[in-house]
This record gives sequence, structure tokens and C-alpha cells, in this order.
Amino acid sequence: MVITDDLLTLFLETRSCTEEICAPLQVEDYVVQPVVDVSPPKWHLGHTTWFFEEFILSKYIKDYKRFHSDFDYVFNSYYESVGKRVVRTNRGNLSRPTVSEVYEYRDYVTSKLQTLLEENESSDVRTLVEIGIHHEKQHQELLITDIKFILGNNPLLPKYNDTFSEVLATIDTSSYIEVKGGIYEIGHKDDDFCYDNELGVHKVLLNDFLIADKLVSNKEYLEFINAGGYKDSLLWHAEAWDWINNEAINAPLYWHKIEGQYQHYTLQGLKALQLDAPVTHISYYEAFAFAQWRGERLPTEFEWEAAQSYFKWGERWEWTESAYLPYPNYTKAPGALGEYNGKFMVNQKVLRGGSVATPQNHTRPTYRNFFHPNLRWQFTGLRLVKDK
Amino acid sequence: MVITDDLLTLFLETRSCTEEICAPLQVEDYVVQPVVDVSPPKWHLGHTTWFFEEFILSKYIKDYKRFHSDFDYVFNSYYESVGKRVVRTNRGNLSRPTVSEVYEYRDYVTSKLQTLLEENESSDVRTLVEIGIHHEKQHQELLITDIKFILGNNPLLPKYNDTFSEVLATIDTSSYIEVKGGIYEIGHKDDDFCYDNELGVHKVLLNDFLIADKLVSNKEYLEFINAGGYKDSLLWHAEAWDWINNEAINAPLYWHKIEGQYQHYTLQGLKALQLDAPVTHISYYEAFAFAQWRGERLPTEFEWEAAQSYFKWGERWEWTESAYLPYPNYTKAPGALGEYNGKFMVNQKVLRGGSVATPQNHTRPTYRNFFHPNLRWQFTGLRLVKDK
Amino acid sequence: MVITDDLLTLFLETRSCTEEICAPLQVEDYVVQPVVDVSPPKWHLGHTTWFFEEFILSKYIKDYKRFHSDFDYVFNSYYESVGKRVVRTNRGNLSRPTVSEVYEYRDYVTSKLQTLLEENESSDVRTLVEIGIHHEKQHQELLITDIKFILGNNPLLPKYNDTFSEVLATIDTSSYIEVKGGIYEIGHKDDDFCYDNELGVHKVLLNDFLIADKLVSNKEYLEFINAGGYKDSLLWHAEAWDWINNEAINAPLYWHKIEGQYQHYTLQGLKALQLDAPVTHISYYEAFAFAQWRGERLPTEFEWEAAQSYFKWGERWEWTESAYLPYPNYTKAPGALGEYNGKFMVNQKVLRGGSVATPQNHTRPTYRNFFHPNLRWQFTGLRLVKDK
Amino acid sequence: MVITDDLLTLFLETRSCTEEICAPLQVEDYVVQPVVDVSPPKWHLGHTTWFFEEFILSKYIKDYKRFHSDFDYVFNSYYESVGKRVVRTNRGNLSRPTVSEVYEYRDYVTSKLQTLLEENESSDVRTLVEIGIHHEKQHQELLITDIKFILGNNPLLPKYNDTFSEVLATIDTSSYIEVKGGIYEIGHKDDDFCYDNELGVHKVLLNDFLIADKLVSNKEYLEFINAGGYKDSLLWHAEAWDWINNEAINAPLYWHKIEGQYQHYTLQGLKALQLDAPVTHISYYEAFAFAQWRGERLPTEFEWEAAQSYFKWGERWEWTESAYLPYPNYTKAPGALGEYNGKFMVNQKVLRGGSVATPQNHTRPTYRNFFHPNLRWQFTGLRLVKDK
Repeated sequence: MVITDDLLTLFLETRSCTEEICAPLQVEDYVVQPVVDVSPPKWHLGHTTWFFEEFILSKYIKDYKRFHSDFDYVFNSYYESVGKRVVRTNRGNLSRPTVSEVYEYRDYVTSKLQTLLEENESSDVRTLVEIGIHHEKQHQELLITDIKFILGNNPLLPKYNDTFSEVLATIDTSSYIEVKGGIYEIGHKDDDFCYDNELGVHKVLLNDFLIADKLVSNKEYLEFINAGGYKDSLLWHAEAWDWINNEAINAPLYWHKIEGQYQHYTLQGLKALQLDAPVTHISYYEAFAFAQWRGERLPTEFEWEAAQSYFKWGERWEWTESAYLPYPNYTKAPGALGEYNGKFMVNQKVLRGGSVATPQNHTRPTYRNFFHPNLRWQFTGLRLVKDK
Repeated sequence: MVITDDLLTLFLETRSCTEEICAPLQVEDYVVQPVVDVSPPKWHLGHTTWFFEEFILSKYIKDYKRFHSDFDYVFNSYYESVGKRVVRTNRGNLSRPTVSEVYEYRDYVTSKLQTLLEENESSDVRTLVEIGIHHEKQHQELLITDIKFILGNNPLLPKYNDTFSEVLATIDTSSYIEVKGGIYEIGHKDDDFCYDNELGVHKVLLNDFLIADKLVSNKEYLEFINAGGYKDSLLWHAEAWDWINNEAINAPLYWHKIEGQYQHYTLQGLKALQLDAPVTHISYYEAFAFAQWRGERLPTEFEWEAAQSYFKWGERWEWTESAYLPYPNYTKAPGALGEYNGKFMVNQKVLRGGSVATPQNHTRPTYRNFFHPNLRWQFTGLRLVKDK
Repeated sequence: MVITDDLLTLFLETRSCTEEICAPLQVEDYVVQPVVDVSPPKWHLGHTTWFFEEFILSKYIKDYKRFHSDFDYVFNSYYESVGKRVVRTNRGNLSRPTVSEVYEYRDYVTSKLQTLLEENESSDVRTLVEIGIHHEKQHQELLITDIKFILGNNPLLPKYNDTFSEVLATIDTSSYIEVKGGIYEIGHKDDDFCYDNELGVHKVLLNDFLIADKLVSNKEYLEFINAGGYKDSLLWHAEAWDWINNEAINAPLYWHKIEGQYQHYTLQGLKALQLDAPVTHISYYEAFAFAQWRGERLPTEFEWEAAQSYFKWGERWEWTESAYLPYPNYTKAPGALGEYNGKFMVNQKVLRGGSVATPQNHTRPTYRNFFHPNLRWQFTGLRLVKDK
Repeated sequence: MVITDDLLTLFLETRSCTEEICAPLQVEDYVVQPVVDVSPPKWHLGHTTWFFEEFILSKYIKDYKRFHSDFDYVFNSYYESVGKRVVRTNRGNLSRPTVSEVYEYRDYVTSKLQTLLEENESSDVRTLVEIGIHHEKQHQELLITDIKFILGNNPLLPKYNDTFSEVLATIDTSSYIEVKGGIYEIGHKDDDFCYDNELGVHKVLLNDFLIADKLVSNKEYLEFINAGGYKDSLLWHAEAWDWINNEAINAPLYWHKIEGQYQHYTLQGLKALQLDAPVTHISYYEAFAFAQWRGERLPTEFEWEAAQSYFKWGERWEWTESAYLPYPNYTKAPGALGEYNGKFMVNQKVLRGGSVATPQNHTRPTYRNFFHPNLRWQFTGLRLVKDK
């Protein structure tokens, strides 16, 4: 746990940062929800605020007066044990509270929490504030990808701004690093913050493997497309094959074939496809099919974690072959906070690393992200593995 | 056709009026589409403008420069013959163009059309402008009901303003007027504006009938509810019975039962149910079931039109028993404008009259509105008829 | 009402006839329900039997012992007021009762009813038996069209038998008959059996019109297809245009384009398209679009009935432009039998005439059939009308 | 691989056994498909036959004449690379080929394959025949569970026969066996038949754990129900909670609460719930929630396999916590047979053991079955694990 002053600083920085992410938006951009997985930015602003109000202020401030009695209903995301909530598919139907009211709500809660932190030095509060900060950082990541979807799904293809670069590092050539088999320790060991799904340090036995030092590039992915990868059923999972056919998927999200050439929509607007950038916005299904086509495979999350010392990480979220499951001795936190991770541990795949949308210092080698295998709106890419 | 100056005045007044309807809105209210039938106000503002641009400016101004090349795609509603368009269910997913850009678009087109009207005295242009004005008036009506739905569907139940009264006249007692059978002329005869679906004056033979001089009141409708009207399958059409059971319908739209008492959401916010107001926001299915329960029936549109001289009209849209069908000798206008009415003449019921949302002078005794029998977001009510 | 002996004879003939229709079937053909509108033949056999048991035997025979206590649940079609029933979409999921048990059920009820008719001469019973007979005749018609769908939807395209001819009369040339406008009496006048929806003789005022003496032929319909009729949005209702595009409709049901030539599936198996046969298996939407393309229109049901003396009728069910609505003074029968017709009087179009599937003496000039405008599995065709 | 004579014997026994399973059925029972996962028995009979025809006879018999040219289309299940096929949801819409024709098809193929086995001693053929036999045994298991669903979903609740016992062993008390942590070898080692998903023997490192020697009983599961297990959101995965609420799930499949007491439908008909029988027909979601409620967990498939020597197995399919994923070095067979397992390795959970529906000698300790986590029509149960 960080000491108080630092925690307060971190709290205030985090709150500011969320608002900076939204600074380039028009009011209208805060409101819409073009698909169920993409929440309105207004909702993210309110929900991260509600989290502090519901789990800290209303518990630790005597006679705490909520900013608005109905916001509990509007901004609860999925905490079944906390009460009723707006059905997720309806978030984009709500014009009220307005953006300006949501910012007032943020100011109110930020200010109350600042006072609480200054007055109450209990470790319970600080632990919860730390969770709230990390919760908000997760939503910062979602804010960026949701904003990209809202703008990139608009027929006018407006840009977010002129400065946000989606590429952290380009890829010329990649090579394979040999990792020796043996027993590796997996899971979070240090004292700093982590989520409960990273805990339970445990040993895993791995075989020898070769792991690429770079992510797969747009150039390589284009070869897969040009070789008919989307048309060869034998490369795909059965559910994936139905999915690409029903949804007419034949390229990563945001790729537009215009007069025979691929362009891709970025936060800076529509651009010629950058061939030496890592491929992003692909589903697990596509990552898997690409690896099949190459005769290679995705790493397990354990191989990935074991190989951390060998390569720069965190450039894209990377799909792994691992299903999202509890580590040995995993136990959920009691009560509503226990709904944070455990209840999603089925039908999802683990991603490791981090992306251009991930806030500074928010990810780490043991961090486990997870999504359904068909989702593509995150900056998701892949790294290949070969068996020896 | 009105003469030029008057037409220009009417045009400018109509454009202003649309914007006045939106004046109480927050920017966010312009964007959402909570159900498919309710379009975002921003879309109405743009679409009525596009209508003038597409059907008049681009045809009658040489080298006309459109305000934005993609707005054609964004604001076309359903004119198949004019080109591609945003799928209706996606209107609420578009944050751009912004509200402010849409207002700029309006100003641009209003100004160009004003110039055109001042310079071009051809009757073709004036006829089209007149259609465009009436088209925009229809959308004014929709704007009010769509705004009501957007606000009334929000868990915060915000009001529109403090002055919009939904009740034009209260109902104490009603009595029945006897109308003699015989041959009546139906359809629009005068020279003033009407839609093509009102044309084709023709004779209809009617029997004697008794028609109520007032609409059914909330008090009477409440008796139907309390008598178990929503639970007696024999009162309902088969499709209606499935509908009320699947959708859990047991009262008009906007009625909320709070601690045993009905309140209803109005444009002035949530209020105690006004018993002497006409019942509104009921579907044809409910109007029919109510009439069955009373042992009476709805008028046909011909009976309704024949009885016009006997009672004040226009207080609510009134469901009739008539299906929306072409009058004898009905012919569609050639080209895209022919898509205005004819292609909807199946599976809909005719409504007659007008409502509090109807602009001044927009309706008339021959006016035929039409909706699917399950729709309730208009101010729809009913008037009873008895056979002698 | 017919006299007793004749009624018994008619009853027994009707029961036999139903079973003869099923004679060419394999046991498996009795069981399946490939789309919701097509019921398993086994269900028709049971339901027509249940009708006699539920509405007559159980009411007029003291201590009547039902054949099976659960058949009430299995074979009720849509009578809400009689009790629970198998959801319509689940009829094809029931392997039991077996076909053989259903035939035993039929024999049991036929025999009990025969005894009742011999012993009970009350006019109530006879009226109900007469309704039951006509109800069963309606199901004979459905049996034939449902069997055609079950076989014609099977990839093996098995034939029903070698003798059932679908064409009652061929069409060489057609001409138009002039019908004078004036007041016509509409509705059933005689003493013989009719349904409640034909009652309420009333006067209707018609204009002069010209009506074709023949139905539209496959040859004429093929011209419409070849002229691009399915690709011109201006010919179609809005809902029809969505429907043909979503369902990829481009020809009548059962037409197969094989090596550039149309063949059609008939009860005798797949055949070359018979050009001089009336077009059948088209929806109202298609009938309307065809008439639009020809610059003509469909008759109203009143025009059709008024013109009866001028042409042979009953060769195909003919779509009319009329919506299915109650005649003036229409009143439903009390209780469950009142569910027979009235509750379907919305969102459907009237058909007049009869088809090759209609039992002898089952239709008449005042008979009103009705279907949703997109349905095609009946032998539905059209006749054109022109205004003078 | 077994030697020829034994293989032929096994082949003929397997073919007979499939038909014996169907012996108690009525013809109608062969035809229906009440839910997508349950195929008509007729289809199983045809599909297992098509497998031999498609992958062996048509390849290894010169000028092989298929029994029917269209059966390829009708009986292909999911082999994308082999050609078009009837969509899975339509299997229950096909009344033809008849049951009797399917039996003729079986006899034809059985006879041709017998001749081939007698004449061709190549190991390729024998390997494929062995796969075909095991494929058919898998379908025998499905046949029993699909038949149970077809009959148990029928409102008449007919029994299958009077002799099929669903309980292999009753449960009085259970105790926990301690298994030592360490490195275990996982996967199939012997020479006898196994599927490709069991291959790739590899080492796995396990912690100490305690595993129950018995399955969970109906008595224990009833306690979970009575304690409100289905109403406590904190016990359930998020997707599970939505599922039980949307589908109104509150007990295992086939449990009927009648006058306050649970009865369960078995292949011998409806019976009082047998408390000392293992609970079956529960989804993974329910197994997981039950374990949560007990404060224990499900075993991983590796723990389960490692503990095999300690307890009798094979009494019910047992849900594990493991996601269905490839073992290290897993490689798919080339061509269509490679579609057998690999393409399902996403979004499914592994089951281990076997059930009363599993043919003799068909399962083994390394056998990996897999289903989506919401499926319940198999005889699926659970065994608990505790950490030390």
C-alpha cells in the first residue's frame, strides 16, 4: 500500500487523467453506445465515481449525503448484490444525467474523498481507495477503446485528435527466443497493488518452447488474408467459422478496403495501413487461425509470464491460449467486491501485456486481462510460439 | 397553393418552430434513440433539412454545393430510390454530426431556400416547398412525442418544461350523437394543401350510427383496468393478447402505479393521473379491447369523417377501425416523392383528428394518419360508436 | 341446418375424407413442423377430433369419459378461454401420441359422436356438429398445403402421389369484364352454413370497374420476374421490400431455377413450370407488386363478390386489397367459439374463392379467408382489376 | 489396433448395439428434434452410417456406388471440408428419408464394410474403421440422452422401457481422499484406441488436494436448493446468473415439483426423486454454484486423472473446472478427420468419467468429453475437491 500523501496524489492524478482523456470529445460523443460492449463515455465517468461513493463514502462518512439518490441505479455496472441497475444494453438510451451533471458529480465525490483521505487514516479506507484508483484506470483503458469505436463506427469517421499515436514500436524482423522448460513460479509476489485474480503464487511445469520476440505485424497479417486465411474452414474453431460467416468478417476491425487497398481507422483518423505496426483489433479466433496458418500457436499465459524477462512487453494486449480460470487457492473477496473478477471466469480467454490505451504503471507481468474470444474493439494482437 | 410571400413566411415560421420545440433540450437529449420508432431529435432536425436539399435545392439550383457530402447518407429516412442510408435502428449510435453542426446545416439550407424562393417563381418549386413545409410539420409532431419518450423513458423522469399542457379539453360527461345513414362524400375537396392519401373524393354508403361527442377519459379507462380488462382474453385480438403478455402491458404508456395509485408522466414531469383528461398513449389493440368491454366499437374512418360537423375534433389522435388502404383511384406521385404514403398501406390502422403535438393548421377533417396497431408513443386515444 | 341423417352422413364422410388425404403419407410425415405456420398432419387429425370432444361430447354426454386426459392440452389450437395448450411452435417436437394412437382417438370420438347424433336431436348439438364439420373441412385444406410444404421443403423432394392435379383450369387469354357501379349487397343471405364473419348482409357502394375473367398465369408472372420486378423498390410496400430482401425472395414459393430454367415442386413432384397454369404460392406483397407493375390493382373483396356472376370462381385463393375487418353489426359468438374469427381481424388480408385444396362444397361466393400478407404456402394467386 | 477378426466382430456388435438402443422407440420418436442439441434418432442412425461411407467406402472401394446421392447432404454433421449439409437446426424438419429407408441404408453400408474388411487388410482401413466404431459408440451415448430428452420433454412423459436403470451405484456417505502433490503424467499412454485430444502425454505439477470418493447425491443437491442456492447471485458466474434467470432454472433438468415434492423423469418414467442417487442433469454452472455454496470446488481434469487409482469412476460424467484446451504438442489429423476434436476447443468445459449412457469399454481414465457450460441433457454430475 502507498503512503497517504502519495495515495491522495495518485487519486487526484487518476481523476484528472480520466477527464483529460475525454477532453477532445464533443458532448454528443459522451452519450452513445453503438454496441453493447462499448459504454457511453458519460457512463464511465459516472460509474468510476459511483464506485467511490458506493464502496467508500457511503460506508465511511457518517450521514453521507449522496449526490443524487437515483445515480446508484444509473451507474451500477454489474454488482448484483448492491441493487438494481440500468440494463447494460440501455446505457446509450439515457440522455440524462447530462455530461455537465456528471462532471459535477465527479467533483463532488472527488472532493468528499479527498477530505476523507485527509481525515481518515484507516488502512481499510486506503485499501479501498487503491482499488478504486485501479478500477478507474481500467476504465481509462476502456474509455479510449470505446471512444475509438464510437468515432470509428460513425460514417463520418471523425478523428479523436491529431496526437494520439497507436503504435508504440514498429516491427522489422522478429526472431524466436528459446525458453527452457522446468518449474516456474506464476502469480503476483510483490507488495504493490494487484487484483485478486493474480494472487495465489503457484508453480507450473513448462516444456521447452520458442517464443517470438516481437508481435505479429500488419504486414504478416495481410499475408494471411491474401493467402485466403478467412476462407479456409480448417484453420478456424467451429464457433469462429460460424461467427466470421454470419458477421461477414474478413479483416481486422477498422480495416477498410478502399479501391483495392487497405486503410485503417486510427484515433488520428483514416490512414494508409501501417505495415510495420503490430496487428491489432483482432479477436482470439483470428489470432488462433493466424497461428494455425503459420503452423505455430499462441503461448499459454504461463509461458508468456515465464518468458517475461526476455522481451519488451506491454505493447499490445496479447491473446493467449489460456482460458480465464482461477489460480489454485483463489478466493473471492467477500461481498460486492468479490464480484470484481471471479464471476467472469468462464468462456473467456486471458490476455497479457497492455496496450497503448493502458495507463502508465497500470499493467505488470502478472496482470491478467480477459475477454470473450470474438471481441475486437480492444487493441488486441498476438505473439507466436513454436514447440521445439 | 399559397402565394409566394406567404409561402416564404410559412417556410421561415416552420423552420423556426421546429427549433423552438427543441429549445428546452439539453445537447444530450438530441442524440438518443431509446426504441426504434423514436428518432433522435438531431436526426429530425437534419432529415427535414435534407428533404429540402435533396428534393429542391440540388434539383433547382445550378451547381448547388451540398453542405456536406455524407449527410445524404446520414439523413435519408426511407427513400429507397434516392440511395443508401443509415439503418433506422442505428440512428441513436451516431454522435456526429454534432447538434451544433446540424444547426449550421439548417441555417445553410434555410438561407439557400429563401434565396431560391425569392428568385424562382416556378410553381414546381413552390409545390415542392409546400410539401417540404408539411413534411417538416409532421416531424414537429414526431419531435414532441419522441422527446416525451426520450425523457419519460429515463429513470430520472426529467420534465420537458413547465408550460406544455397535454390536455386541450377536459371531459365531464359525454353523450351520443345520432348520424343518419346514407351516401357521404369522403376525401379532400378544397384547393389547399393535402397529402395524396386524402385525394380521390369518393362516395361511401354508411348505416345509421351513434357517435360519442367526447373522447374516452382516463376515468373511464381506469374502470376498464380495474374491471380486469387486461386479463380477459376474449376482449383482445389474438396478436394483441400475445403482445400484452409478452410485453407485460397492463396500463397505458407513461402510467406508473406508485403505492397503489396511478401517476402519469407528462411533459411537465410526473403528475397524479388527471381523471377528466382524455386517455392517451394507448395502442389500437387497447382501444379495441376497451370498446369490446363496453359493448361498443371504434368508428370507421368514414363514419368519423361523416360526423365531423357534429363535434369538436383534433384533441387527440383517435384510433379508427379502418385499415390504412388507398382510396379509389389513388395513384402515387412519380419517383421518390411517391414513397411518401403509398408504400405504408398495409398492416396499419388509420387515425383521425390531431393531437396536442400537432402544429397549428396542420391537420384537417380529411387528414389520415396511420400507425401499427401496437404503437403507443403518440398521443393516441379513442371515441366510441354504437350501432342503432 | 341439414336434417339429421344427412348431417350424420356428412359427418362420417368428412371424417373419412380427412383420413384419405393422409393415406399417401409415411408415419414420419405426420410428425414434423418445418415452419410455424405448417402444423404436423398428426396434429390436424387430433385437433379436429378434439374440437368435437371439447365442444360437443364433453358438454352433451353425461359423464363423458375423454379418450385421454392430456389430449386437451396437446390438441387445443388457440382457444385461450378453454385452457392451457402446447405452444404452437412446439407442435413438431412431440413424437407422442403416436399416429396410431391419434387414429384410435379419431375412431373413439367419431363413434361417440355418431351415437350422440343418433340419440340426441337437439338443434344445439346439430348446430355445433355442423360447425365441427366445417372446421374439419378447413383443416383438410390446411392438411394438403401443410403436407405439400413438409414434402416440398425436404431436400429429397418426395412426391405426395401421382394423381393429385394442382391445376383446375388453364389460362390462354384473359379479358376484362365491365362491372357497373352502384349499391351492392354483400354478405351471406341463405340459410345454409356460413361462418360468422360472412354474416351481416350490408350494402356497399361501388364505382364502375373492369375485372379480369381469368387469374394471372405463370407465364405473366414470369414476365414480371424477367422484367426485374423483384428488384424495383417502387413496386413494393416498405414492409414487403424488407421482407423480400431479408428472406432473399425472388420467385413464388416452390419455384426452383435449375440450369437457367424454372421448375416447380408440385404434389406430383418436381415438374417443368406449367406456363398456362395460374400462378400460385405468392404472398399478398407479391400480388400487389405484380399489379403495380402492370399498372392495375387487386380487387376489393366487395368488388370481387359483386362480380361473382360474371366468372368461374374458386380456382385459387385470390388475394384482395381488403383488410380483414368485421362487417357492420358483426358480433362474436359467446364463449370459446367466439374465438373462431373475430380475434384475427387485424393485420391480415382477405382472400376470396377457393383452391384445389378446398373440399367440395366448402367454399362459396361470400366465404372470407384471411392470411398475413407474407404467407405463401397456400395455393394463393391473383386476379387483376382496372378502373375505368 | 485390434486384429482383423476382432475388429470385424466389434464393428458388427457396435452396429447391432446402436439398433438395439432404438428398439423400444416408435417410428415417430425417430423424427423430432425438440432443441438444437438433441438430434433425431433417425439422424444418428444415418450419420454414423454416412461416416463409414464417406471416409472409408467411397475412398477404398473402387467405383463405390453410394446408397443414395443426397444422403451425403442429409447426414453430414459438421465436416465443413466435406461439403454442404442440412443446417443443424433443421434436422427435425425432415420426414424423409423414412426410418425404414435409414435402416436399409445401414444394412447396405454394414454389408459393404464387412466385405471390405474381409478383403482389405491395410492398416489404413482398419484405423479408420476403428475410428468409425468409436464414433458410433459416442453417438450411442448421445442416442440415449437424446431419446430421454425427446420423451421427457413430451407432455405425456412416456417411458423408454421398464428396465433401463439410470443409477449405477447409490451414495450413502462420502469421504475425502488425500492426494499428494507432485508431478503427474497426464494423457493416453497405451496402444489401444484413444482420440487425438488425449494424446501428448505430458507432465503436470499438482498441489496436495482432497477429493471426494463419491459423487454428490440428489439429497445433497436438494439441500442446496432448499438453502436458496438458486437465488444467491454471489454463488454464480455472471453468465450463469443471467441464464438461470432468463430460463427460469431452479432445479436440475427433469425435476418436476408436484404438490410440493420433487419427482424426476427417468427412462422408466416419472418417479419419486431418489435421494441416494448421484445428482445428474446439471450444468457446469450449477455444479460450480453448488461447490461454491459448499465452500469447496470442482477438480481440474488433471487432479481428476491423477486421482483415478483411488476411486471407482465412470458413474456419471463429472464436470471439471478445466476448460477444453489442446494438450501440449496437440496436432490435428490432416483433412476432414482433423475436424473431430480440435475445432471445438474453445468455450467448453471438460467432463471426465462416463455415464450410464456410455457404451461398455468406451471410456477410460484419460477420456475427455466436453460440453458448453449450460448444457444439461447428458447424465452430468459432480465430485467435490478441497484444498488442504
